[in-house]
Amino acid sequence: MNLPETKNLLVNFDCGVLHVTFNRPDNRNALSIALLTDIVAVFDAIRDSREVRAVVMRGAGGNFCAGGDIKDMAQVRMAKVAPGEDPAAAYNRKFGAFLRKVNEAPQATIAICEGAVLGGGFGVACVADVAFAHVDASFGLPETGLGIVPAQIAPFVVQRIGLSQARRLGVCGGRFKGEEARRLGIVHETFADEAALGKLLDDTLKQVLRCAPGANAVTKELMLKVGAVELDPLLDYAAKRFSEAVRGPEGAEGTAAFIEKRLPKWAQ
Amino acid sequence: MNLPETKNLLVNFDCGVLHVTFNRPDNRNALSIALLTDIVAVFDAIRDSREVRAVVMRGAGGNFCAGGDIKDMAQVRMAKVAPGEDPAAAYNRKFGAFLRKVNEAPQATIAICEGAVLGGGFGVACVADVAFAHVDASFGLPETGLGIVPAQIAPFVVQRIGLSQARRLGVCGGRFKGEEARRLGIVHETFADEAALGKLLDDTLKQVLRCAPGANAVTKELMLKVGAVELDPLLDYAAKRFSEAVRGPEGAEGTAAFIEKRLPKWAQ
Amino acid sequence: MNLPETKNLLVNFDCGVLHVTFNRPDNRNALSIALLTDIVAVFDAIRDSREVRAVVMRGAGGNFCAGGDIKDMAQVRMAKVAPGEDPAAAYNRKFGAFLRKVNEAPQATIAICEGAVLGGGFGVACVADVAFAHVDASFGLPETGLGIVPAQIAPFVVQRIGLSQARRLGVCGGRFKGEEARRLGIVHETFADEAALGKLLDDTLKQVLRCAPGANAVTKELMLKVGAVELDPLLDYAAKRFSEAVRGPEGAEGTAAFIEKRLPKWAQ
Repeated sequence: MNLPETKNLLVNFDCGVLHVTFNRPDNRNALSIALLTDIVAVFDAIRDSREVRAVVMRGAGGNFCAGGDIKDMAQVRMAKVAPGEDPAAAYNRKFGAFLRKVNEAPQATIAICEGAVLGGGFGVACVADVAFAHVDASFGLPETGLGIVPAQIAPFVVQRIGLSQARRLGVCGGRFKGEEARRLGIVHETFADEAALGKLLDDTLKQVLRCAPGANAVTKELMLKVGAVELDPLLDYAAKRFSEAVRGPEGAEGTAAFIEKRLPKWAQ
Repeated sequence: MNLPETKNLLVNFDCGVLHVTFNRPDNRNALSIALLTDIVAVFDAIRDSREVRAVVMRGAGGNFCAGGDIKDMAQVRMAKVAPGEDPAAAYNRKFGAFLRKVNEAPQATIAICEGAVLGGGFGVACVADVAFAHVDASFGLPETGLGIVPAQIAPFVVQRIGLSQARRLGVCGGRFKGEEARRLGIVHETFADEAALGKLLDDTLKQVLRCAPGANAVTKELMLKVGAVELDPLLDYAAKRFSEAVRGPEGAEGTAAFIEKRLPKWAQ
Repeated sequence: MNLPETKNLLVNFDCGVLHVTFNRPDNRNALSIALLTDIVAVFDAIRDSREVRAVVMRGAGGNFCAGGDIKDMAQVRMAKVAPGEDPAAAYNRKFGAFLRKVNEAPQATIAICEGAVLGGGFGVACVADVAFAHVDASFGLPETGLGIVPAQIAPFVVQRIGLSQARRLGVCGGRFKGEEARRLGIVHETFADEAALGKLLDDTLKQVLRCAPGANAVTKELMLKVGAVELDPLLDYAAKRFSEAVRGPEGAEGTAAFIEKRLPKWAQ
């Protein structure tokens, strides 16, 4: 695995865990096209690595991510449009591709939501496998208040919390704090200080590392297909993936460890 | 915008908010075909108006809506059926068309659930963007106890609260009060008296009016497409809608207001 | 209705309720192919019976079900594979067919979750209409810790609790107790002792028996189609089913009972 050089992203790999820090603190880690490109490059680089077991995403300077970047947006509004071109649509579509990339990472992904968790940042929280929020974190979809649309984010909000809560947030542009984010199911736990976060993170990573990396990737892949694929073809596909797993090296090691009453290699 | 004359519905337009009152209090606002036709006519009339920013639905006389009308139902049971005709199916299908109409209104819709919230009334609660329930409101799906089926309502219940809770209600014909309705996600808040309701309504309308009307309509449209359209085509479509918004008058006004540190026109 | 002979299953029919007991207590009711075949045979036998109004599933000896059977699994791993054959996939696919069968039973199904509720047992809890958990019950998806995949179960977990919570459980192999199962929506109520369970069960069965059996079957069928069928065709189909119900014997009896202010026959 070769990690790309990234200007707007700090990346640190340690004991199977890739720590990724959005590093534009002066802009509350707004998702400039440059930052977004960096994140996509990292997820592309680790796609086939089962050495990377988990990805922890956090923002530098106390904010998770304040959404799209005002400068990029202004440029898009000003852009001369040639016939058949739509640079604003192309700009916006990049966010959807980025959210899909994070959503479908084969590794366990963890988002630490603090400070501003707005727009595109809200979207990232919605596609993490596990999300923690600081009790004072500010979640929100400010787009409609600015006359624009949380277009690429809205579908992921619905997938995250269901239509009933999503449509309410949609028409109210609703801002709320960490505890409400937990109640809605956007995040799974809240924390009030760094020590509490540390414990949550340790516990979760311990659980993730006990699971076989390939088996976890397949489980996540199957879960993400629900709704997109009909049930019977999905179960047929799942059976093939089960067969590969049980007859492959992870299945052999897991069975051996079970019989020998020891931890499997991946859990050590 | 020309509002139709309605015999079973009181309609009042004030400061961007359309107040719609189901007005058959002696029948607990049962959804006669006449009432249902009135409601559909109003939603048709406001469909293209962005002047109407929100629709507040309430029942006259302390009940929201007790479901279908017994007289209509009796007529349908008695109707002579010519070959190829199915008046009972046609009668029932009207409820589904009506629920879709409310569900897909481009405005923010708010349901105030008090007293009887049964059958079709339960269905209306399930398709409002925001729903409030009196703590003593009586929710229920009494159809199966009468040997009939909540046929048009069932799909909207599943979309509202998910299959796990919906199927339980389905086989139990479950009746419950406002607090349980909130816990299940059918409504978003409960109230115990008119003052508390007034505050909930004010707060919600304030939030809705801060959002651009066109942007809100698009956001809601996109959210309702999740599951019905595959993810990538949905994101493509969403990008086009984003582009229209950012380059349109709301995008221009929102950007100007942001730069000039003032409220946009629609929020005043 | 002729019930099949079952070696691994105790079956008892009483007052419209079929009590089904998984009876491999020494193996914590692990789902051997033999047990699974017994359960499928019973659900096949009652498929067209509206005399059976509810099915209560429980495990003998204090455990609900510990998942797949180790011996079956070992056999599958050892099996010689002829070209074009995949016995491991075929073995696994049986679980999906079994879960669909329970999921789509026309009767109200109730799962009593105690002790081990693991893997395939977790799956059964996810497809019951109503599920109760003992506060100390142990839920879990231990597969990925053994290098294999909860392949047939994962889709039903997502349908049960939504993607946000399911993906977290998926990557963490999450074990949890009854109260958390209720919070997640896997079960609907918890109990701490046999008396509390008795009351929950009585209340639920009373509600189920008040509903017309055919109408309940149709309601459940419609709910399970949401997402698999598009909304408009689903509402068309639902209207036909409504028409059959209202013009059929249950509709006639329900209407008569309502007018005569008595309980309908099915509720007595």
